Amino acid sequence: MKQIDDLGGMGVVQTVRAMEEGSTTAGAVARACLERIAAANDDIKAFVALDPGHVLEEAAKVDAGAHAGGLLRGVPYAVKDVIDTADYPTAYGSPLYAGYMPGRDAACVRRAREQGSVLMGKVATGEFATQTPSQARNPLRTTHTPGGSSSGSAAAVAAGMVPVAFGTQTTGSIVRPAVYCGLVGYKPSFGMLGTAGLKTLSHTQDTIGVIARDVMDVACFSFGVHGVRHVQAAVEHPRIALCRSSQWDYASLATHGTLDVLAKRLASRGIHVDSIELPATMEALAAQQPRLFMFEARQNLAYEMETRRTQLSTRLQKRLDAAQAVTLDEYISLRQQVLQCQWQFAELMRNYDAILYPAAAGEAEKGLKEAGDPRFGALWTMLHVPTVSFPCGKGPSGLPLGVQLVGAFGEDMRLLSVAQLAARIALEVG
Amino acid sequence: MKQIDDLGGMGVVQTVRAMEEGSTTAGAVARACLERIAAANDDIKAFVALDPGHVLEEAAKVDAGAHAGGLLRGVPYAVKDVIDTADYPTAYGSPLYAGYMPGRDAACVRRAREQGSVLMGKVATGEFATQTPSQARNPLRTTHTPGGSSSGSAAAVAAGMVPVAFGTQTTGSIVRPAVYCGLVGYKPSFGMLGTAGLKTLSHTQDTIGVIARDVMDVACFSFGVHGVRHVQAAVEHPRIALCRSSQWDYASLATHGTLDVLAKRLASRGIHVDSIELPATMEALAAQQPRLFMFEARQNLAYEMETRRTQLSTRLQKRLDAAQAVTLDEYISLRQQVLQCQWQFAELMRNYDAILYPAAAGEAEKGLKEAGDPRFGALWTMLHVPTVSFPCGKGPSGLPLGVQLVGAFGEDMRLLSVAQLAARIALEVG
Repeated sequence: MKQIDDLGGMGVVQTVRAMEEGSTTAGAVARACLERIAAANDDIKAFVALDPGHVLEEAAKVDAGAHAGGLLRGVPYAVKDVIDTADYPTAYGSPLYAGYMPGRDAACVRRAREQGSVLMGKVATGEFATQTPSQARNPLRTTHTPGGSSSGSAAAVAAGMVPVAFGTQTTGSIVRPAVYCGLVGYKPSFGMLGTAGLKTLSHTQDTIGVIARDVMDVACFSFGVHGVRHVQAAVEHPRIALCRSSQWDYASLATHGTLDVLAKRLASRGIHVDSIELPATMEALAAQQPRLFMFEARQNLAYEMETRRTQLSTRLQKRLDAAQAVTLDEYISLRQQVLQCQWQFAELMRNYDAILYPAAAGEAEKGLKEAGDPRFGALWTMLHVPTVSFPCGKGPSGLPLGVQLVGAFGEDMRLLSVAQLAARIALEVG
Repeated sequence: MKQIDDLGGMGVVQTVRAMEEGSTTAGAVARACLERIAAANDDIKAFVALDPGHVLEEAAKVDAGAHAGGLLRGVPYAVKDVIDTADYPTAYGSPLYAGYMPGRDAACVRRAREQGSVLMGKVATGEFATQTPSQARNPLRTTHTPGGSSSGSAAAVAAGMVPVAFGTQTTGSIVRPAVYCGLVGYKPSFGMLGTAGLKTLSHTQDTIGVIARDVMDVACFSFGVHGVRHVQAAVEHPRIALCRSSQWDYASLATHGTLDVLAKRLASRGIHVDSIELPATMEALAAQQPRLFMFEARQNLAYEMETRRTQLSTRLQKRLDAAQAVTLDEYISLRQQVLQCQWQFAELMRNYDAILYPAAAGEAEKGLKEAGDPRFGALWTMLHVPTVSFPCGKGPSGLPLGVQLVGAFGEDMRLLSVAQLAARIALEVG
């Protein structure tokens, strides 16, 4: 497994500090990234739209004093290609939109620019952020998938092309690629980052988040976009619950093992660790998440499906056809169950700072035709609660395994603090 | 006040029936609407994009058998101009986007087309669906505002140009213009209609809904878009709570009076009517809704604000500047309060089928510079619960007053049934 030291270039926090000290320039940082992209992208296929001259112009503006008060000055970042950008085409991972210029920035992109960060271009996504994979490869082992649908976001960071990238999650599209590539994935509480300019897939679940090298980097970037300087406050006596559910049957024995080992290590450091079962209502809801997803996706991709059907992948066509079986009544019932479980989860979280849960079934799979099982993100995305995933130990083939911590709605800051501690302890596992 | 009989043309249910009987054609219905638009639009300014030749082509396709199984065959409808359409420009009520062609249909538009309804064009909206009014006039009295921000949707229906129109509500943008124009406004539970292709303003509140002449028409169209034939099932022994809150201080005495009269009439018909006070937590939340709105709108309009500021109205610029005062911490706290109140409201609604509440402060205001006070929709939009507004009595100047019924989350069908009954009784008031 590639170590963080191997990634080259500076992380988010490092870049912010170096810019503040005046020990680097946005131009120098951007050039280093461009070199890395030029060297590795033919192999990794993370970037799908890039304009080095434009990048250097943008960096030069920052060095000339643009966004003077920005909290992210000079930080290079990439954007998943389901998110609109004014200066790059946005193809949503579909040949249907090849070369499409939306002519404006999504909310998160514009807010990042306002803070002085430098957009490096667009990175690969599964088709419309669904499970149909992109061409991106896993930099840890290029014969393997980087996961999806935020495949390019994870691959670009893992290859050292950028220190941070925006991704999106509707089921498990941030949490999984992050750990497949040995990185940290942060899916904020639903709606923390405005969704204007995001291609809507499942409007009650689509969440914009961030993939970076470590917890401090995801936190610094995510809060920085809001103009908030992130200060890591230690959570005293954190309480964590290792949460077993029937979804565990879909995780590998190695994943079970790494969760148990991490739980023991956390406990040995004086952290309160319980073991709980997922309540039956949430078990039931988690199993139904694909149906809620399908009902919404069938609406939101109606134009593409009805007028350009043959330009969608066969896989997506089949999935959207199958969505016709989900009735409005069933959908409404699922939405009501979500509301009930949101409340139930809030009650449960009175006793815990974080739930410990698998981030993926196991290691990244070989081949590029599948991007892995997203199910371990499904419930948490549906419930709108924040998650942080990070690598923990290695699987049989030497690639990272991953876990996630899940927090109470809106308690993102607390969750990131606990994750910072836990991810450090996880480095010692395996 | 213009009576429904004066509107000319057929309503949604009537059109569906006439098409099924073969007693009319989509072409004939569309031509009748086009004539009405040609006669009245210079005065009313409801339509902002219209192509009669294209409309007749679309209608001819339906008459030739397109969308043969559709539930809304031949039903003409208009679309608020914050919702993307493939065949018309979409300007979001802003000179910044004059002539902009998004090149694809929003989810709701495409779904409506799939059911055989005929898009008549785009109707006026407040700037990006905010309070800056459009040029549309109230057909009941053209010196008066039709309300906003779904001003064109209400004006077009009230002028008999179309039987139904899509609108959107982020605070009170469906509920109010509907009653200002003597119509019925239906804001579904959040997310019932997919938001792909809607210009995002406040992503946790933006809700697509429908304005039409009566409850049966909004129900028939809204469920029809989902491919569901709406069957009005009577709610046995409906229980309604007249809900007083501190917001009532912003409503006119005439509005107080009409609510009291309606409550008495409902009770005299054997309907169980309670009077309740809004719980303190909801009172507090309702007062803060503009701050939640502003935080989200400032993110979602970041591109326009930062790169085309002078093309926004001074009013919107000021509002978005003021939004900077809402911190991330405050926003998160508000979102957590919303979750708490959603649950509290669900508990409250175990005892009631509907809450009776003002739909607006009073009659439509004179002049076109203000579109009226949206606050009576704020809490319900934030809580994601369905509302149906309808006229009830007349104010001092002879224009309609309005009330709304609010249902439990997801209980849209039940709410519409109660509203159907109550709106009929309301016709007898004043």
